[in-house]
Formats: sequence, structure tokens, C-alpha cells
Amino acid sequence: MRHDGRNNNELRPVHIEPNFTIHPEGSVLITVGQTKVICNASIEDRVPPFMRGQGKGWITAEYAMLPRATQQRNIRESSKGKVSGRTMEIQRLIGRALRSVVDLDAIGEKTVWIDCDVIQADGGTRTASITGAFVATVLAFKKAIEKGSISKMPVKTFLAATSVGLHHKHGAILDLCYEEDSTAEVDMNIVMTGEGKFVEIQGTGEEATFSEEELAELLALGKKGIEELIDYQKKIVGAFTLPDSRSHSK
Amino acid sequence: MRHDGRNNNELRPVHIEPNFTIHPEGSVLITVGQTKVICNASIEDRVPPFMRGQGKGWITAEYAMLPRATQQRNIRESSKGKVSGRTMEIQRLIGRALRSVVDLDAIGEKTVWIDCDVIQADGGTRTASITGAFVATVLAFKKAIEKGSISKMPVKTFLAATSVGLHHKHGAILDLCYEEDSTAEVDMNIVMTGEGKFVEIQGTGEEATFSEEELAELLALGKKGIEELIDYQKKIVGAFTLPDSRSHSK
Amino acid sequence: MRHDGRNNNELRPVHIEPNFTIHPEGSVLITVGQTKVICNASIEDRVPPFMRGQGKGWITAEYAMLPRATQQRNIRESSKGKVSGRTMEIQRLIGRALRSVVDLDAIGEKTVWIDCDVIQADGGTRTASITGAFVATVLAFKKAIEKGSISKMPVKTFLAATSVGLHHKHGAILDLCYEEDSTAEVDMNIVMTGEGKFVEIQGTGEEATFSEEELAELLALGKKGIEELIDYQKKIVGAFTLPDSRSHSK
Amino acid sequence: MRHDGRNNNELRPVHIEPNFTIHPEGSVLITVGQTKVICNASIEDRVPPFMRGQGKGWITAEYAMLPRATQQRNIRESSKGKVSGRTMEIQRLIGRALRSVVDLDAIGEKTVWIDCDVIQADGGTRTASITGAFVATVLAFKKAIEKGSISKMPVKTFLAATSVGLHHKHGAILDLCYEEDSTAEVDMNIVMTGEGKFVEIQGTGEEATFSEEELAELLALGKKGIEELIDYQKKIVGAFTLPDSRSHSK
Amino acid sequence: MRHDGRNNNELRPVHIEPNFTIHPEGSVLITVGQTKVICNASIEDRVPPFMRGQGKGWITAEYAMLPRATQQRNIRESSKGKVSGRTMEIQRLIGRALRSVVDLDAIGEKTVWIDCDVIQADGGTRTASITGAFVATVLAFKKAIEKGSISKMPVKTFLAATSVGLHHKHGAILDLCYEEDSTAEVDMNIVMTGEGKFVEIQGTGEEATFSEEELAELLALGKKGIEELIDYQKKIVGAFTLPDSRSHSK
Amino acid sequence: MRHDGRNNNELRPVHIEPNFTIHPEGSVLITVGQTKVICNASIEDRVPPFMRGQGKGWITAEYAMLPRATQQRNIRESSKGKVSGRTMEIQRLIGRALRSVVDLDAIGEKTVWIDCDVIQADGGTRTASITGAFVATVLAFKKAIEKGSISKMPVKTFLAATSVGLHHKHGAILDLCYEEDSTAEVDMNIVMTGEGKFVEIQGTGEEATFSEEELAELLALGKKGIEELIDYQKKIVGAFTLPDSRSHSK
Repeated sequence: MRHDGRNNNELRPVHIEPNFTIHPEGSVLITVGQTKVICNASIEDRVPPFMRGQGKGWITAEYAMLPRATQQRNIRESSKGKVSGRTMEIQRLIGRALRSVVDLDAIGEKTVWIDCDVIQADGGTRTASITGAFVATVLAFKKAIEKGSISKMPVKTFLAATSVGLHHKHGAILDLCYEEDSTAEVDMNIVMTGEGKFVEIQGTGEEATFSEEELAELLALGKKGIEELIDYQKKIVGAFTLPDSRSHSK
Repeated sequence: MRHDGRNNNELRPVHIEPNFTIHPEGSVLITVGQTKVICNASIEDRVPPFMRGQGKGWITAEYAMLPRATQQRNIRESSKGKVSGRTMEIQRLIGRALRSVVDLDAIGEKTVWIDCDVIQADGGTRTASITGAFVATVLAFKKAIEKGSISKMPVKTFLAATSVGLHHKHGAILDLCYEEDSTAEVDMNIVMTGEGKFVEIQGTGEEATFSEEELAELLALGKKGIEELIDYQKKIVGAFTLPDSRSHSK
Repeated sequence: MRHDGRNNNELRPVHIEPNFTIHPEGSVLITVGQTKVICNASIEDRVPPFMRGQGKGWITAEYAMLPRATQQRNIRESSKGKVSGRTMEIQRLIGRALRSVVDLDAIGEKTVWIDCDVIQADGGTRTASITGAFVATVLAFKKAIEKGSISKMPVKTFLAATSVGLHHKHGAILDLCYEEDSTAEVDMNIVMTGEGKFVEIQGTGEEATFSEEELAELLALGKKGIEELIDYQKKIVGAFTLPDSRSHSK
Repeated sequence: MRHDGRNNNELRPVHIEPNFTIHPEGSVLITVGQTKVICNASIEDRVPPFMRGQGKGWITAEYAMLPRATQQRNIRESSKGKVSGRTMEIQRLIGRALRSVVDLDAIGEKTVWIDCDVIQADGGTRTASITGAFVATVLAFKKAIEKGSISKMPVKTFLAATSVGLHHKHGAILDLCYEEDSTAEVDMNIVMTGEGKFVEIQGTGEEATFSEEELAELLALGKKGIEELIDYQKKIVGAFTLPDSRSHSK
Repeated sequence: MRHDGRNNNELRPVHIEPNFTIHPEGSVLITVGQTKVICNASIEDRVPPFMRGQGKGWITAEYAMLPRATQQRNIRESSKGKVSGRTMEIQRLIGRALRSVVDLDAIGEKTVWIDCDVIQADGGTRTASITGAFVATVLAFKKAIEKGSISKMPVKTFLAATSVGLHHKHGAILDLCYEEDSTAEVDMNIVMTGEGKFVEIQGTGEEATFSEEELAELLALGKKGIEELIDYQKKIVGAFTLPDSRSHSK
Repeated sequence: MRHDGRNNNELRPVHIEPNFTIHPEGSVLITVGQTKVICNASIEDRVPPFMRGQGKGWITAEYAMLPRATQQRNIRESSKGKVSGRTMEIQRLIGRALRSVVDLDAIGEKTVWIDCDVIQADGGTRTASITGAFVATVLAFKKAIEKGSISKMPVKTFLAATSVGLHHKHGAILDLCYEEDSTAEVDMNIVMTGEGKFVEIQGTGEEATFSEEELAELLALGKKGIEELIDYQKKIVGAFTLPDSRSHSK
């Protein structure tokens, strides 16, 4: 059994607190085990220069950690004057994931800014960010619909993410905490939709490799976890009519 | 009467939640009206290069806002690649304020890192940061005493801060919210100790000036507010034996 | 008596050389004891983006030291690639101070750039900068009036600054040199107008505190010094008709 | 048929020119269709600070493009003063991939610097970089063995990478050129070893998603391509005795 | 005799490969001994802000080295986040040299971007860059003439560069390799036109000086070398009608 | 005749004020016509890392302009966060020039920092900087000899610099002011020693070229000017015994 008593295919307790702060159009605090991330979605009435004049929206994400989100204090990226490769990789991932389930044509020339700020970290901060950011984005669109600035929910399907990994002690496990993550041979982040389609698979062996069978086992675990996360998201955001989703058509 | 129904000499509701996150040695969430700041104190077992070999400690502070702490989203300072003048001014102020009430000789060659991260802003973020950071620092020292890494509480006296201002509609007012702050003629931040001594006074007329009588009125208001804040801090941190405090002797 | 023979309430010798360099609209070299600052005022025919279209002017300041203005050579901020917190704090102070006595509506969409470059430092560089920058600004406006680009002097009242402090050896003293400043318990910068109103008070106890009585004593000393500085400024800039000044109305 | 006449499961012509430049320990020019990358491997006799004293080596990678490697000229990252998120993501990927097949304990406290500089780009620059960097690394180790600074080949198995994708016109295709890549719904980079194990899978739907069946099809295509690439690498580097490779054990 | 067997007045073998990469309007690989530089010329249909509205073109250059162009690996300037003084000096030199032989009025509001990327260095990289960049620029203009975006060759005369130096062992020598360059007392870079006029002379004694006689000897050597280089350039770019060149008239 | 009434071979009035500021070991204000530069020389008791352990000294230079040294205000390089190519080129030139006349072995592991800060610019700031910096350096060494930290004057010969140019209206002229410099076809900076040897020649045709005869004329003018400058320097620094100078031997 895992050190916190979970089975290999068990998620940590998840909680999403909607309307966590007052200023953003959409705001949640997502808690996954000991990992806590504030996910805010802001809607701005313009798009970046490279997209102007196309009548289409954009979604972009930023990710950061408080210096003492971790056991050892980290130097702030604003003090260092540059954003690390790890941060850039994560914020690009969050942005891509959200863009895959939003009908960007339907929102007009607006930008959704996703801000994921980790206030406490215990593994899985990027996947918790995606799961929470999806809810914040839906809340922001609901407010925009109420205000009349968009006409109907532009979200095509639900979206959540989790991590899976191969661990020398436990084998294939779901939703790794920091302790597990830092000792795993293979680490994989999976982002999936409410219809069981993949949006992103990032599987990495740090000084290790994995076989096709192991891959299949990891994907199955991830799918199970994401289905549970999406069931929970549905309770939080309530019912809304999704437009017809379209798989791999741009 | 002020737009939130307060009298001129009334503080907004204040709440301090100790042990807000798990990793820092000292951690609080301070709420002052709608302003919310996470204040974390971390103790590191070394001092910056310019202080090495003196057998003495150091306290330094960093301050930041989440992008959507405010009504309009702000660009992250890590994305801009530099820290603004306003941020630097605030973090220098927090550091100086804390150093004035801690016996740096008593903690040996350790650095206390104060991180104040504003998750929701409605005026008075720098003074809330100081009031919260004082509590976080005391909590961090308590933990250090328990662990035996320092022998007794090195804090000389209590410390809190508030803002006062001259407002064309209300006259002299205590604890300005953002709406009041942005329309005030004169804005003053006051930091005081548990013994009613000043640590810092920063009074500023932006495109305006103030007389000696107005100054006296502002200082009296600030003193009243800080006494109330310190009474509240005492409830949170509980009783501890302060070393003999010494006024203006280094 | 102080090490340079002054009484506690005595300023150092002050000298302002107008038209120090030929290119700026207003240029002075101010000498306060051994502190020497070149203060240049440049008038530019546009305002920063955030102020456009309001028909109103702006004043902004920059401050720097030559590397060997001080006893030990300092690294240039251009070589470090960033401006220090201390520099930012000072240039924000100088800008605010000047803005408080200039009728920004009267100058139209123009920016006054104040450049204060310390060529020799011996304490009090920020207050000397303000005192000199005021004169440079008046000279620049005089030239603009001659050229017809503004119609009358937009300065509402005189402005000067000095420092005061509490020193373990001398008590309350006026106009601290570097030696005194670096050993003082409490350091206070005061900016006042020709009508005896405060524009800015910044009192700081570095690892020390001060009482209300001590504050009153410091303010009185500062007032005396600033009155003398303004008397001297009047000799330099000559007579000009001030518009009616207005206290704390924006 | 694809616009260059290839079948869906066909690689572009690949060529690796060993010893392309004279200074690096290992140097190749890899050509994949119209994509050309100089891959240099340098061996340095020390490790980064975080790894000192462990008796173990490190591999790190840097990736860049000449400004006119692409159809439109790109601004140099040195001129912009910062490295883009895309560049960071790629260099982190190359480093991880190489580390997974090298026995870092066997090389002692040495760092292998991999430099991948794209001189001409037509899609697949990151996978060509990995395939070429593997050969450059083996050449560098051969030279180190000749010089006696390491005793035997520390490479555990062969390593190559390619891209696969889902394209609205062609379906699942192998080794995408730029034209195909920029119009594909799903893009996946796969890194595999000589034993058919995965090192890295990065599958991404930009504004699209993919099913389990589509994933299986893509993985099969990628596997076929990588086997062909590894056959070609073996011709270039010649025979060398691989140490026993170990799958997912660190 | 010199260590590579050359006479003092002998160039190293020179080779220029035209159309080295496919995307730039003009592209060459120039090889001078062991020094290899990719020189690309890109034509952009606009000029920098300071030149707009003058109906005139501009030429600007960038220069970089691959990290392992040299015997010891150099840190990338993009990783350091700034461009070195040496790099800036070289790219300013290349830009000035090219501008001196191109009729900027004749090309209209276009910018020619010269990119010189050293892939292997053995001394003389800046002079090889100029010699190669001239050819790349002519090739780019030829393509622009074919496309009809400019009407006739705007190049006024040929242009090449070489280095000369005073060496304690050899005396005055032509075209220094790295070994000679790093031990020479005086190093001089000379840029000349097809008509034997100087464009640039940069003679430098690092911890040494030189007399008028020595200067004359160096200039004669340089002139001989540049005449040979220009003869070779003519073979590469073929015949084209030069407009009447004008000496020192702007 | 030139617009300020000078003959073509005439320098502008030159004045050097020694001991201009109190803190640097050597300090002068040099005035050449309307160009004014503060040149400070600081001696530090260590050398940069790349020179440690060789028992030899180093000289390095920094150059900057006040924002209003020029007719239009320039943005501070500290505000831009980077040093321009022009600045870097000038400070590298000043450093090299000084190093060529100082016996670096004789000063031991010390660094001389030369700071040249232009407070008013009217052409020729880099050559005025060199001429002034030489005097500041000699003054700094004199102080070091008095204090006993070096034993005798380590300067091998005098050093000064001036500019010459080809001007469409005047022909070859000496010591160009800004107006002349900005309209000259060819601009050349010459640095020479007290023995009439060249240290540096930088001749540049911006969109123009020059012949051997023109070069000879320019060099003769420069030589005349520098002889006059060195005669004046000798009056300022007084007599001192120069060590035997050595031409082009390192």
C-alpha cells in the first residue's frame, strides 16, 4: 500500500472552492491532497497582435509558485528576472489544454487569461492547475453570458488532468504525491475530455524507459482518474448545455 | 459616513488565520476588509554575504500580488523580467519594519525570509503585510525555539501597521480601502510598536500638501488603529515573554 | 559639537550654480557640504501613454550616482542591468515631490523629465536632489515661457527638502552628512513648501524606534532648515509671480 | 499521396555526416529531408553544482535556430535577451532523452553538453536533434575512450526520435515536414531505444483531441520509423559493445 | 615560415559556397582556412522606425558563434541573456562595411538583414564574415531583381576584408589564424572596395604600439590580400553591371 | 573657415581640472570645446577572476553619458537594462588604450577602474575620455606611490587621443565638433603615445570610402593634434620619471 494508505488506482481527496477571490471573472481554489492551487480566469476584450482581425479568441495561461509552496524556499522568478524552463513548459501545456475544448470562434476577439498560482505544493501541480482552470474558465464564461458579452457557453466538453507513474516499489500508480513523483522511474501527465478523448499525453522516463504494455497500464489508470475528476467538476459547475463537440477538427 | 458605513476612526474587520500553509516555519493569511495577504516566514541557516562572520542575523522581505488580486489584471513581474519600483519600495519597508523589533544578535547567523503575497487587494496591502508578517515571524521563532535552534523569543515588542489619509469628502480617516486611497489627497502609512513608538512614518501628498495640524490628526488616528491591531495580534500569538525592549539604541 | 563644527540645527553650506550645462532647458549644480548633484530638467512635448488625451502634464524623475561618487566604487546600474530598490525609491520620491507644487493642468500635454546625477556623495543626496531639481524646473519653465510654449509660471509654491535624524551622540540633528547618517538611529527626510506645508515625511528607524516627542523635535528642525533653503532658492531663481497655491485639493 | 510523394509510413531521406566540425569531441550534421541540424557533443570535466560529490555525470542540452533557418527571419534569442518557452521545452526534452540511455555513474563527474543548432528547418527539428545528438554523443565517448578519460562505452542502448501526426487530409502520417506539421490536428513526438522501449511520448492536440485507437496507430507508425533510424545510426557509429541495458531501473 | 607553411603575404585557402541554405534570399558558406561562417542576407520590406518616410533603405548585421565553434565551449549569448561587447562591435562593423558600398536610396524602404553565424573558428571570423556577407548580399539583390522588387543592382563596388598583424616571430603577416592572432602585438582589420579605397581600418596594439612605417607595411599587405579576395568573389557572383560608384560622397 | 572660426588643423580649447571630485584616487574634469567629461580612476586591490595568480594588474574602463549631455534627452542605459553597442565599443577602446602604456606587471594584482562620464557632449567624447583618463590614471598612481602601495610610476609613456575626419565642405579637419562629426564622410579616431607611436587607429567611412592619400593626410593632422594635447598633459601632471618604454613587446 502507498504511504498515505491509498490503493494504486486511487486519487487523493479533491476539493474545488468556486468564487475563491472576488475580482476575477472566474476563480477557484483547487485542493488535491496537500496540493493547493488558486486558478483564476480573466476575460480581456482583445487578442494578442498575431491574432487580430480574425474574429477569433485566444486562451493563454501563466503558472507560478509562491516561494514557500515547497519544503525548501524557492527564489521568486521575478527576482531572478526570468521564468524557468519548467514554468514555461507548464504554462504552455495549460494553455493548449484549455484551447482544445473551447470554441475560440464562438467568443470573438477576446483573450482568456488563466492564472494558476500554487500556494502549497505536494506533486501534481500542473494537472491540478488544468483541472481547476477548466472550472474557473466555465465560471468566467457563465458570468460573460449573464453580462451578455458572449451568447452561449463556448465550451465543447469537460476537461481534466492527472498524473500516473511507474514506481519501483508500487508499480503503476495514479495521482502521484511529491514523494512518489520524485522517486518514480516514469512520470506521465494525461489530459482528457469528458468524452474520453486525449488532449495531451506527456510520458517521460528520467534515466529510465517503458514498454508498450506499461504504457497501456498507465493510460488505463489515468482514464479512470480523469473520469472521477470530471464527475466531480460536473457537481461544481452545475448543468450547462454543451455545444456539439467535434473531435480532431480544427 | 464612509461608503462601507465605517466611522472615520474605524478599522475594517481584521482576521488572521495562523498556520495557513504547511511548509513555511511561520504562515498566516491576514484579511483586512477585502484585502487578503498570505504572509510566510522562512528561517534559513545562513546570512547574505555582506553580513557573514558578524554572528548576527538578518530579515529580508519580498512582496508580490497575484495578477488578478486587483480589478484589472496586472502583468506578472516575472513575465516583465523586472520588479517594479512600487514593489521594491514595499519590500524594503516590510524588511526594515520587522528588523526594528527583532534582536538580530540573538538569532545568530540566520536569515528570516518574509514573503507577503497578496491574493486579493482592496487598499492597505503593505500595512496588512507588516501586521501579518509580524505574526508569521513570531510563529516561525516559536517553532525554532521548540526545535532548539534558537533559545528564546528574540522579538523585542509587538509591531503593526495601518494607513491613514486626508480625504476631500471625509477629512482624516483610518484604514483606507482602495476606493478611498485612490481619491485621497494625502496618504500616510504608519508602523508602530507595542509600546507606542514609531518605527516608520511615510506621509505623502500626491499633487497636494498637508499642515502640521493635519499631521497631528493623522498620527493620532493611526495610533488608535495600531493599538487595536496589536491587541488582536496578542490574541493570535498568545503570551510570550518579550525580552527587554530597547528604544532607539542599535 | 558635530565633527564638522556645526550646531545641531545648522545646515551645511549650500550653493546652487544655475545653467550648469548647456543642453537642458533647466540645469543646476547643487552643492550641499560635500554632496554635489547635477539636476537637469528637460521638457518633452508629450506625456506617457497612461496620461494621453487628458490635456494635462506629467513630471517624472530619474536619479543615479557616478560609480566613484562614493568612497568605495559602486557597480553601475547599467552594468548590472537593473535599477536598485534604493534608486527607484528615490526617483519616485523626487517625482512626487515636484508634482505636488506644479499645476499640471497648466502645462498641457508635456512631460518634465528631472535627472538628478550625483557626482559626489556625502549624505543627503535625495534631499539635495529635490532642492536642486525645484530650481532646475523653474528655470526650464522660464525658458518655456520665453519661447512661448507655456504662458505663465505653473509653479504653485517653492519646494525644498532636507534630512533630520536622531543620533546617539548628538540627539536631534539637521542635515546629516554621510558619517552622521550611517550612525544615526532614526533618519527622516522632509519635503516642505514655501508656505510651510508638508509634501512628504519619511521617517525610519533602522533597528530602532522613536517617540512622539522625538518626532516633534525632528519636524521642527526640518522646518527651520527648509525655510533657509527656500530663502536661498529665491535668491537664485529671482522673483516670479506664483499662481494662487491650493493646499490639499487635487 | 503526400505532397512530396511519400507514403504515410515513410520517413524522409536521412543523412548523418560525422565529424562535421573539428573542435567538438563529437560533431555531426544530420539532414532529414530539408531539415539540417548541427549536433555537437562536448565533454567537460566537471558537473553542475547541484551534482557535485556524487561521483556521477550529467548530460545537458541547448537548442537554437539560425535566424534564417526558417522561411521568415526570426529574431535571435540573444537579441531578445531571453530564451523562448519553445526553446526551453526542446532543450529539456533533448537532455532527458540522452540521459535515459547513458550510464551516468560510468562517466564520473563529467558533463556532456549537447548543442543542437538548426541551420535549416522544415519540421521535425527536435526529433532530428535527438537522433543526431545520440550519434554525436557516441562519437564523443569514443574519443574519450581513446584518450583514456573513460574506460568503456557508457551508452546502454541506441536512441532515436521521430514525429507522427493526424492530418485531416492524410490520416496518420510519419515524419511530418513543416507544411504537414502546421496543418495537422494532432502532433506527437516519440523517443525510443534500440530495444523498442519508450523514453518519451509527447502527444498534443492543438484545438483538437484524439482517441485510444488513433493513439495506437500513431505509436505503431513511430515505432516503425525509429527502427529504421536506429538501423541507419548503427551504420554510422559502427559496432561498439553496449553495456547491459536496464529498463526502468534508475 | 609560418606554422602552416604560408609566406607572410599569403592568404589561407578561401572557398565560398553559394546558395548554402534554401530559405534566405542570399546564402553562402565561406571557408577561410579552418574558419567557416554561414552568411545569410534577408530582405525585409520595411525599415527601422528611425528611418521611416525617407524613401531609403537600411542594412544591419548580426554575428554569433556556435558554442563549439571554438576549442573551448563558450556559453551561448541567449543563455547569458545579453550580447557581449565583442559581438556588438563586430556586428556594427559588418553593417557599416556593407552600407558603404550599397546605394541605399536605390533600394527604397527595405532592410537587408545580414546574419553571420560562425560554425567553426580559427581567427579572422569578422573579416571572413564581411567577405562572405558581401556575396550573400549580391545574391539577395539578384533574386530581388529577378522578382522585380528592385530594378537594378544597387551595389556600387566590390567589398572584402582581411586581417594583418605584427608578430614578434614573423614580422608583418597577412590573414592571421587564431594561433597567430592570439600572440600578435598588433592586430589590424582592413575593409576595402574593388577600387582600392578603404572603408574601415581598425588597428589595435594590445599592450603594444606601432610606428608609421609599420602601419604602411601592414596596409600594403592588407591591400594585396583584399585584391585577391575580390578576384575570387568576382568568380562566384559572376558579372553584373555596377552603378557608377562614388567615393566619399554620401 | 570652420563654423567656430578654427583652421582645419586646429584643436578646440582644452582644459583639464585635476582633483575634480574628492573620493576617487585620480579625478579630472576634461573640457574640449563644449565637450565635458568627468574621468575618474579607482585602484582596487584585486584583479578579475581570469587574471588571478599571475602577479599582474589590469585596467578596465566604463563610459556613460548623462541623459541630457546631448541636445535631445537619451534614455538611461540603466533604465533600458542594457548597455548599447556604442557604449561597449567605447569602453573597450578606452581600456585597451590605457593598458598599452601602463606596465601591468609593475602594479601587481590591482585593477584600475576608469570611469568616463560625459556631462556635456559636443563631439569627440571618446577621445576626450582617453586624454582625460590618462591624466586621472597618472594622478591615481601618484597617490598610490605616496601611500606606498606601488613603488614607482608604472606608466611607460604619455597617451592622448583626438579625432580627424574628411568633410565635404572643409576637407581634412582636426578635432571634430558634433555638427562636423555628423556631416563628415569619414571619421577617424587616433590614439598615440608621447613617442609618436600609434596605439589605435579606427577609421570609418559611413556610406563612404577613403584613399591612401586621404589616410596619410588624416594621420598627419591627428599626429599634430595629439602632440599638442600631450604637451598640455605634461603641464598638468608635472614631471615624473617614466620607466623605459618598450615598443610592441608585450
